[in-house]
Amino acid sequence: MAAKLGILAGGGPLPGYLIEACRSSGRDYFVLAFEDHADPVVIGAAPQAWVRLGAVEEAIGRLRAEHCEELVLAGPVRRPSLADLRPDRRAARLLTRGILSKGDNGLLGAVVRFLEEEEGFQVVGADTILADLRAAAGPFGRHAPTTDDEADIARGVEVVYQIGRLDIGQAAVVRQGVVLGVEAAEGTEALLNRCGSMRGDNNGGVLVKLPKPGQEKRADLPAIGPKTVAGAVDAGLAGIAVAAGATLVFDPTRVVADAEAAGLFIVGIKPDDYHADYDVV
Amino acid sequence: MAAKLGILAGGGPLPGYLIEACRSSGRDYFVLAFEDHADPVVIGAAPQAWVRLGAVEEAIGRLRAEHCEELVLAGPVRRPSLADLRPDRRAARLLTRGILSKGDNGLLGAVVRFLEEEEGFQVVGADTILADLRAAAGPFGRHAPTTDDEADIARGVEVVYQIGRLDIGQAAVVRQGVVLGVEAAEGTEALLNRCGSMRGDNNGGVLVKLPKPGQEKRADLPAIGPKTVAGAVDAGLAGIAVAAGATLVFDPTRVVADAEAAGLFIVGIKPDDYHADYDVV
Repeated sequence: MAAKLGILAGGGPLPGYLIEACRSSGRDYFVLAFEDHADPVVIGAAPQAWVRLGAVEEAIGRLRAEHCEELVLAGPVRRPSLADLRPDRRAARLLTRGILSKGDNGLLGAVVRFLEEEEGFQVVGADTILADLRAAAGPFGRHAPTTDDEADIARGVEVVYQIGRLDIGQAAVVRQGVVLGVEAAEGTEALLNRCGSMRGDNNGGVLVKLPKPGQEKRADLPAIGPKTVAGAVDAGLAGIAVAAGATLVFDPTRVVADAEAAGLFIVGIKPDDYHADYDVV
Repeated sequence: MAAKLGILAGGGPLPGYLIEACRSSGRDYFVLAFEDHADPVVIGAAPQAWVRLGAVEEAIGRLRAEHCEELVLAGPVRRPSLADLRPDRRAARLLTRGILSKGDNGLLGAVVRFLEEEEGFQVVGADTILADLRAAAGPFGRHAPTTDDEADIARGVEVVYQIGRLDIGQAAVVRQGVVLGVEAAEGTEALLNRCGSMRGDNNGGVLVKLPKPGQEKRADLPAIGPKTVAGAVDAGLAGIAVAAGATLVFDPTRVVADAEAAGLFIVGIKPDDYHADYDVV
């Protein structure tokens, strides 16, 4: 019997998938939802408590009171201003380590280490619980990349490798060798939106979305879903490349159906086939 | 007496500054303006001809008929779709070299080589004609970067070095060590706009805008102007860092006045003080 799971819920649909997985496997769980980030509709009627992001003391207390032994970090959290954060004593201690001036991977890696090494929890990756949602290798449907698309994928992997190495972002859009956009703090949806608004009469191009090289996989694993497909279609792209086994695909049936209908390819690749130093743990 | 100057005019204010410089120095000049890119208001009453971007044959013919010996590339040109471009024979020959699948620096470097080596023109950098608009070293006004701003500048230089090396873009915005945004095809104005819309209650951060390492300086030299200052202020930034001697500052009196009024610093830096391999030719 697996230990009780504490779901640390930020935004987006991921907490909902984790709740559903626990329910259907009969696993005991508890949701610790972050105010102003988690979506009450996604959390639904799950056993839950809501805390401020800066209330680390209270959060840890709730998780212990609920006897959670394993934790999973689920869904993005916007970086707060210090004034908004109102850090309690334990949060303030974390802040003195300068975690707010790191990129997402640096910050979340420090949070994972804090929870494990100082607080004694086990932190697991969402992908270990949602194995069914992990991206497969190869094309997801009927459509596959052309030779030109393959060249754009190769350039995109190089770009995402470099920006990932600098802990900037996980995605880039490349069309005919030209980098249309690079993801940083704005996220993939905003990246696709601006590629759409620059589209003009142009068609084609590829969204490449991959984990950062050496990324802490237990936090912020890249994900795509129906919104990503819609954004790619609106931007006139030919397809999407993700890291096989190291990307979550939300609502996979709809993702594949929507991509098929629009003539968009989605392909699971191995980043180290393109860049030998690209370690996707 | 300097040779007659052909001003190849794309968008933005740069062609206007070049026209003004020729007039006030009494230098002979002719504007070859690209349809759908150059701004008729900026070109004004200057001696001019308008050509399609794909009409290379006609463009070269006009420049020869006007006895232009020196050329200057002035102002950005959006990448056309092939259908829009309708390339003539000479443009088609250039296209077979794959220049449309290069980044801006790769493309413009190929254009400069074509004009010099195959067509016998001399291509000069806009900064050689507009020496007065070259960014000075050090703070432009009363405001100077703090120690925290200096750290953001250092991180920004590293980011711009890496994206520049990949011929992606010339600018990044960093706040407290976190990369808020990276410029690719969308340009600096759009970069600042999205940093503004992600601002929330946060203040601070730096726009770093530099030439790409080893960039062809006779094309697409980075520039800032009053719009850049306004965008930086709206995004809540603390300041702007540019490469001393290798950036054009349009409307410098207003740039400094607007920055002063808003409490924004603008500083001319030497990229190789931050990154030893950063060659700004």
